[in-house]
Amino acid sequence: MKRISVTIALSLLISIFVGCSSDIDFNSSNLAQNDPLPSWNEVASKTSIIKFVDDVTNENSSTFVPLADRIAVFDNDGTLWSEQPAYFQLFFTMERIRELAPDHPEWKEIQPYKAVLENDMEALGAEGEHGLIKLVMTTHSGMTTEEFIASVKEWIKTAKHPTKKVGFDKLVYQPMLELLDYLRDNGFKTYIVSGGGVDFMRAIVTEVYGIPEEQIIGSTIKTVFELNNGTPEIVRLAELDFIDDKEGKPININKIIGKKPIFCGGNSDGDLAMMQWTASNTDASFMLYVHHTDSVREWAYDRDSHIGRFDKALDEAKEKGWSVVNMKDDWKTIFP
Amino acid sequence: MKRISVTIALSLLISIFVGCSSDIDFNSSNLAQNDPLPSWNEVASKTSIIKFVDDVTNENSSTFVPLADRIAVFDNDGTLWSEQPAYFQLFFTMERIRELAPDHPEWKEIQPYKAVLENDMEALGAEGEHGLIKLVMTTHSGMTTEEFIASVKEWIKTAKHPTKKVGFDKLVYQPMLELLDYLRDNGFKTYIVSGGGVDFMRAIVTEVYGIPEEQIIGSTIKTVFELNNGTPEIVRLAELDFIDDKEGKPININKIIGKKPIFCGGNSDGDLAMMQWTASNTDASFMLYVHHTDSVREWAYDRDSHIGRFDKALDEAKEKGWSVVNMKDDWKTIFP
Repeated sequence: MKRISVTIALSLLISIFVGCSSDIDFNSSNLAQNDPLPSWNEVASKTSIIKFVDDVTNENSSTFVPLADRIAVFDNDGTLWSEQPAYFQLFFTMERIRELAPDHPEWKEIQPYKAVLENDMEALGAEGEHGLIKLVMTTHSGMTTEEFIASVKEWIKTAKHPTKKVGFDKLVYQPMLELLDYLRDNGFKTYIVSGGGVDFMRAIVTEVYGIPEEQIIGSTIKTVFELNNGTPEIVRLAELDFIDDKEGKPININKIIGKKPIFCGGNSDGDLAMMQWTASNTDASFMLYVHHTDSVREWAYDRDSHIGRFDKALDEAKEKGWSVVNMKDDWKTIFP
Repeated sequence: MKRISVTIALSLLISIFVGCSSDIDFNSSNLAQNDPLPSWNEVASKTSIIKFVDDVTNENSSTFVPLADRIAVFDNDGTLWSEQPAYFQLFFTMERIRELAPDHPEWKEIQPYKAVLENDMEALGAEGEHGLIKLVMTTHSGMTTEEFIASVKEWIKTAKHPTKKVGFDKLVYQPMLELLDYLRDNGFKTYIVSGGGVDFMRAIVTEVYGIPEEQIIGSTIKTVFELNNGTPEIVRLAELDFIDDKEGKPININKIIGKKPIFCGGNSDGDLAMMQWTASNTDASFMLYVHHTDSVREWAYDRDSHIGRFDKALDEAKEKGWSVVNMKDDWKTIFP
């Protein structure tokens, strides 16, 4: 099964305007004196992150970067939270199919719906990208944006991960939460740039990551603006708008942010293009590749996994000397 | 000639991270004691803006709005700077056609190029939207984003308005600059949401308006990500991506910002949908309609003008009690 970006993503509850704190000296590095990354072991990835942040925030450094240009972008699935055994958005999608099934008796005999109703992940995988897009179109459209977001918020309240048996929003990476905070404390504007659906993420992510809606970029379906008895509504259509994966990531960064990031975190081939884009910044830049190596506390996978491909980005990260996080060795704690 | 959003827009030079100032009390209204809008006469529009800002920033007010939700959106052409005798982006487009003409001798005989080369605005108007889109595609594509932005920055350095004989970036409205500052001083995040090309605006607007690239939303053409000898580039294609006008404005606000604004400024029927969208906010909201009534200092036009239509939005503003700025009477100064 290829990496399928539309069916994907997830994170946790949105709300806070970020980055404006009245008592922070954005240009000092004294924050580093209190360990800003306590869940990280004293390893090369941690040391190099702190050195980078110290340098770009030090006005006397040759690699100083003004506040306005301190843009940090992060993939979501596998970079800020887990993505096994499947992108968390797929569990929401399957739940919606089950909810809608009573109105569609014919689904019992039609793929990919049959696979979902029988919880047959193998058959679902066999339907490939086309099948998954069909499921997303069926479940993510035909309602207003507000209704869709409400349904995701309702789902996340009780949904549990199939093996970890905790809410999906508990499967975020504590070391990455600390990194997001650390960057923001140093004047960075933190963005998510994910293959996941943008409204799905917005319904869940802001509170957990401290990233406001307007700094979440993801895949989109088309919408229309309608006046219903004078009340304006934005209604979701069963039609793809843009897949924010692979080359789509730098294209969306350019379109929506309009600046090249100086910090990029990713974990798969889907993130390679935005890492290359970040690395081409004429300012200093930092690329962080999260390598899933912990089969006990999280999951260990790379190269050709059932959820996607990881070999090109991992090889390029090593070849170019980007910072590679070895989750097993580098992180003291994985989940909060 | 219909209002043509792709050919349009303009403003001034981009750069500053906005909204993070360490010594501002976002929730106090003491700023109002020093007149925050000195170029505005003491009229209803000014009074109602200040009352609105006082209310939404006062934690004890029933209409208090938290920082994260203080989103303000503004149209650009005719709302933040002038749009006569044509959207300023058209002058850039025509200049580019003249620059490219030596390589295209056939243009002397082919419309809409012939009209541009002969400076025949009537013939150009007769080509309609189709002709204008063709001109934009010819002049705004086939280069990288960086090259395009550089060409706009080069143009704005010397380009002069045909009758005012000053740089286009001097034809911004001083009262609106004060309003943008005032809103930001009160914790608002200010956005441009314009039919103009997003990269055209980004090349010019940030310094003048204090609005960073990531808060500028506009019309887009498609782009591709390419590796040229290992160097990543984003190349502009001669293909429309999205027209950020009329219903496109709330659609883009929903897609990119993900929150409903509480403040909206506009001046034409192209802004009506985003004003309706803002007015439907369950929080308090403020709609500001700029009515061009000053034939001496600026231009006086409304209803069916050669640059577009204004009757629906003006009528709805009056009917719904939105704030209508009478430029002639309300503004002491128009240009800085």
